[in-house]
Amino acid sequence: MTTEPAASRTATPASPQNHALSENHASLIVQGEDRTGIVAAVSAVLSGHGANIVSLDQYSDDPQGGAFYQRTVFSLANLKAVLPTIERDLETELAEGFDLGFTLRDMSVPKRVAVFASREDHCLLDLLWRHRRGQLPVTISMVVSNHTDTADEVRAFGVPFVHVPTGEMGKAAAEAEHLRLLRGNVDFVVLARYMRILSGDFIASLGVPIINIHHSFLPAFIGAAPYAKAKERGVKLVGATAHYVTEDLDEGPIIEQDVVRVTHADTVVDIRRRGADVERTVLSRAVRWHSEDRVIRTDNSTIVFA
Amino acid sequence: MTTEPAASRTATPASPQNHALSENHASLIVQGEDRTGIVAAVSAVLSGHGANIVSLDQYSDDPQGGAFYQRTVFSLANLKAVLPTIERDLETELAEGFDLGFTLRDMSVPKRVAVFASREDHCLLDLLWRHRRGQLPVTISMVVSNHTDTADEVRAFGVPFVHVPTGEMGKAAAEAEHLRLLRGNVDFVVLARYMRILSGDFIASLGVPIINIHHSFLPAFIGAAPYAKAKERGVKLVGATAHYVTEDLDEGPIIEQDVVRVTHADTVVDIRRRGADVERTVLSRAVRWHSEDRVIRTDNSTIVFA
Amino acid sequence: MTTEPAASRTATPASPQNHALSENHASLIVQGEDRTGIVAAVSAVLSGHGANIVSLDQYSDDPQGGAFYQRTVFSLANLKAVLPTIERDLETELAEGFDLGFTLRDMSVPKRVAVFASREDHCLLDLLWRHRRGQLPVTISMVVSNHTDTADEVRAFGVPFVHVPTGEMGKAAAEAEHLRLLRGNVDFVVLARYMRILSGDFIASLGVPIINIHHSFLPAFIGAAPYAKAKERGVKLVGATAHYVTEDLDEGPIIEQDVVRVTHADTVVDIRRRGADVERTVLSRAVRWHSEDRVIRTDNSTIVFA
Amino acid sequence: MTTEPAASRTATPASPQNHALSENHASLIVQGEDRTGIVAAVSAVLSGHGANIVSLDQYSDDPQGGAFYQRTVFSLANLKAVLPTIERDLETELAEGFDLGFTLRDMSVPKRVAVFASREDHCLLDLLWRHRRGQLPVTISMVVSNHTDTADEVRAFGVPFVHVPTGEMGKAAAEAEHLRLLRGNVDFVVLARYMRILSGDFIASLGVPIINIHHSFLPAFIGAAPYAKAKERGVKLVGATAHYVTEDLDEGPIIEQDVVRVTHADTVVDIRRRGADVERTVLSRAVRWHSEDRVIRTDNSTIVFA
Repeated sequence: MTTEPAASRTATPASPQNHALSENHASLIVQGEDRTGIVAAVSAVLSGHGANIVSLDQYSDDPQGGAFYQRTVFSLANLKAVLPTIERDLETELAEGFDLGFTLRDMSVPKRVAVFASREDHCLLDLLWRHRRGQLPVTISMVVSNHTDTADEVRAFGVPFVHVPTGEMGKAAAEAEHLRLLRGNVDFVVLARYMRILSGDFIASLGVPIINIHHSFLPAFIGAAPYAKAKERGVKLVGATAHYVTEDLDEGPIIEQDVVRVTHADTVVDIRRRGADVERTVLSRAVRWHSEDRVIRTDNSTIVFA
Repeated sequence: MTTEPAASRTATPASPQNHALSENHASLIVQGEDRTGIVAAVSAVLSGHGANIVSLDQYSDDPQGGAFYQRTVFSLANLKAVLPTIERDLETELAEGFDLGFTLRDMSVPKRVAVFASREDHCLLDLLWRHRRGQLPVTISMVVSNHTDTADEVRAFGVPFVHVPTGEMGKAAAEAEHLRLLRGNVDFVVLARYMRILSGDFIASLGVPIINIHHSFLPAFIGAAPYAKAKERGVKLVGATAHYVTEDLDEGPIIEQDVVRVTHADTVVDIRRRGADVERTVLSRAVRWHSEDRVIRTDNSTIVFA
Repeated sequence: MTTEPAASRTATPASPQNHALSENHASLIVQGEDRTGIVAAVSAVLSGHGANIVSLDQYSDDPQGGAFYQRTVFSLANLKAVLPTIERDLETELAEGFDLGFTLRDMSVPKRVAVFASREDHCLLDLLWRHRRGQLPVTISMVVSNHTDTADEVRAFGVPFVHVPTGEMGKAAAEAEHLRLLRGNVDFVVLARYMRILSGDFIASLGVPIINIHHSFLPAFIGAAPYAKAKERGVKLVGATAHYVTEDLDEGPIIEQDVVRVTHADTVVDIRRRGADVERTVLSRAVRWHSEDRVIRTDNSTIVFA
Repeated sequence: MTTEPAASRTATPASPQNHALSENHASLIVQGEDRTGIVAAVSAVLSGHGANIVSLDQYSDDPQGGAFYQRTVFSLANLKAVLPTIERDLETELAEGFDLGFTLRDMSVPKRVAVFASREDHCLLDLLWRHRRGQLPVTISMVVSNHTDTADEVRAFGVPFVHVPTGEMGKAAAEAEHLRLLRGNVDFVVLARYMRILSGDFIASLGVPIINIHHSFLPAFIGAAPYAKAKERGVKLVGATAHYVTEDLDEGPIIEQDVVRVTHADTVVDIRRRGADVERTVLSRAVRWHSEDRVIRTDNSTIVFA
């Protein structure tokens, strides 16, 4: 109930244009060994092409010869036409001049993602709903599940749902099917409470980043049934962790974490309910940041320019 | 991705039995002037009938002659049969002995609620989804809206959707229609980002509690467009407030509030997105607590035994 | 800067009467197997003596034959005189009638505490400062340290400082000295970032509760140098845990926890600084709650009626 | 209690070198109308002098011709010698080339601050203690108070304490005395719960930034006694706001805010205690950020590169 009765007639609150980045914007990630003059070299190339720097974040883990990370978003009227030239110039300046790696991406082309789920729907639905609301600048190419419980719901969002019954097929056949579906079709994968372990071979063969949501504050309660363990240990907060998947279970680089307070009076069911709220929030942040090139992966951690 | 592949075959995570209170449980709210012996009198009546006290919360705003508030949940094998007798005994002990008011309720009968919405769907869908997930012990009798945007979505949850076009009908006719729909059919009403102001007459005629979600940390930013005002004022946190509706706009007793951090870099659209997450969380807590008789209204505030 | 210039002349903000509980108040903790009628029996005894229940918290971990916990605070005009009789009556009603354990305590007599510290002063000073401000209803009998760094500061608060140089004396001699100082003199001990491990024998011989602050969100980062480990693991939140000390290092029942956000840009020094703020907050809450009989210890966890 | 008994012998945890910025580091704040090439121009000047950019934060409130803000920290071996030349080059490039304003500061020279207090000591002591611990890169030139309550404590930190009895002297004479003490001696002033209102004339005459801590979540509860008002209004969170002082009471640009949860059971005294913890945290963050040139003031808000 508010004082603005007229507003509801004209406003379009669920417009898909919530994320500002789009037409004629590009992101540039630079990383490598820190040296004097990198920021100047990058910005000289960009301003040489008339690009306007919209945002710039920079981090050096040690000013004396540590690692250098920079995220730059810039806009340019005829971006698509000029991007190849900018890339070539950056190649010359950064890769040859400074021995730095870089990634340049046209932000008007959303990343394509497949979401994996099992029976729990809270993380999956939250992603679908945020996407529809215009809060996730991605294309959700498909939802893959080892169960059919969420099929109708997913299709109601206009997203393809594919059932891959890993239990019946066996793990090897299921992973082969997953590869067939995903390869060439997606830029990253999100495990939205997918209750199956991916093999190291699958992760290597797939070749795109995989983001998982783990229902504990890692590294506490690694492995199965973390909420039950949390109850048993008598902790006063439970949490969730979004991380990149590596071969080592629950050990990959952490993207985001958050926690919520619980008390002695909360049963495991209560804790699971509170935890589910944190899981969907944390996962949606991680997916959003990854979609906007805000996360740089290092050996065992991440740089997040949120 | 977890270590428990087998779990997904047998678990029924979306079971509607998440809230423990149900069969053979009753809630008892007692309030009035504090005096020695109230707790003893209440518990004597309950144990006299063989009831087991499951939880008891008590609060006195001033031990020397202030106001007394108590919430007791108890279980009893044949509750429905005995409840009238317990009520009569409490009447004798509390109302006559101590001049206290009390409310006794069979918790196996969920409260009936109507949800009002306009175009924004985040609060509405969150309530529907939590209800389906078994986290809100209510019956959602209907959704009423002055727009048709959310009709399909609501009906997909198996909940009746009623369109009352207040703009076309005019406020008086619309409120008459609302009364016709609601009276006798619901135990409370939730305004889930309903963008129309209810008249004092309507509130009085309806005669059941109305819970509203206001998209600011009240009393800051009363009235229209709070997020735009928050951006303008340069605040570093934005919030949401769930409160009971009274004739005084945005002034009713507060049930719950929460906030989220924003920065100078957040646009009004970003702030609205962050705020929406808080709104749905705060509203769902308030509705849950109200459904479980955890909120006692005082003059201009609330006692919340959360 | 405020609008109330006159207030500062009369207000006594640092008055030691901040905690309301004092004269003529007692706390009663009851625990044991849950059965019908316990609350009624307890409140009948209290109201039989004319006591007024100021607050009552109750928790059963399973309404069907689980464990029962109740904290009651009551006031009574001539409490000291009547307390022995109440205790005798509770003995009859609870211990004999229900086979329950109980603890009755005159809250006007503050618990006596010794604080152990090493070189870090943030937790120690925060406790001393809160105590002076009237926020901790305890008597700080002494501060014991294996270093002399904080001696002047502690004595400036009017609290005895005792240097026990464990490094020079050896652990056995130091613990003997600790026992000589503490036994009979304190009701509990607080380890305010005390950097020595207590032996199981010492803990057993001392015979009073010991509260420790651990500088991580347990069970994550058990053991030494948790902040450095947290940096290495790339976590996005760091925390602190107050727990009762048992023979198993960092495994005792948790009283309170909290966390604070960190980013990739925080060095270990930054993390330590942020963590220190959480440590002192968490420890002060735990000490306050323990002082007010709000914490009931169970096997490996705690019930906290905060 | 930890596993690292040896650590305490060698560690120097209270070392004043916690803040990394010092020798040979400078900060550069640039602000003005956004145009293509600013970042390139700034970094070209810096790298032209061999400076290494340690951190760079940039923000444009509207990429199409809005306002541009940039904070750069750079290091250079012989900074002091080269700084005048860099300043002259920036003058040429930025002020003349782009019509931008800029501020260049040698970060090895800490800002000088005077802290004003009344009787409440929590914010004052926290600043003194953090300063001693090496967490605030400032020189605390003096503490000024209209009361003598905190004199001993302040002097124990080695900081001059000056009593200016505004009540006896009258406001005009007191402000004249304040000006005499401060002018030329301090770079900014902190009001650490100073309970007197400063006149507009004084603020103008002083000519350096003044940071105040207000004990509410502004703009809620402007003016006197905010905690009492919060209790009355039944809010579920209370907060604190650090802001720059302007002639309009409690209306200046907000630097930082935070909140803490309260319940119906908290008395005004309890709320004040909880609020005090937030006040000191919020104020210390604001002072730290201001000291490190992380806060850029705009018309009625702030850009905070935290």
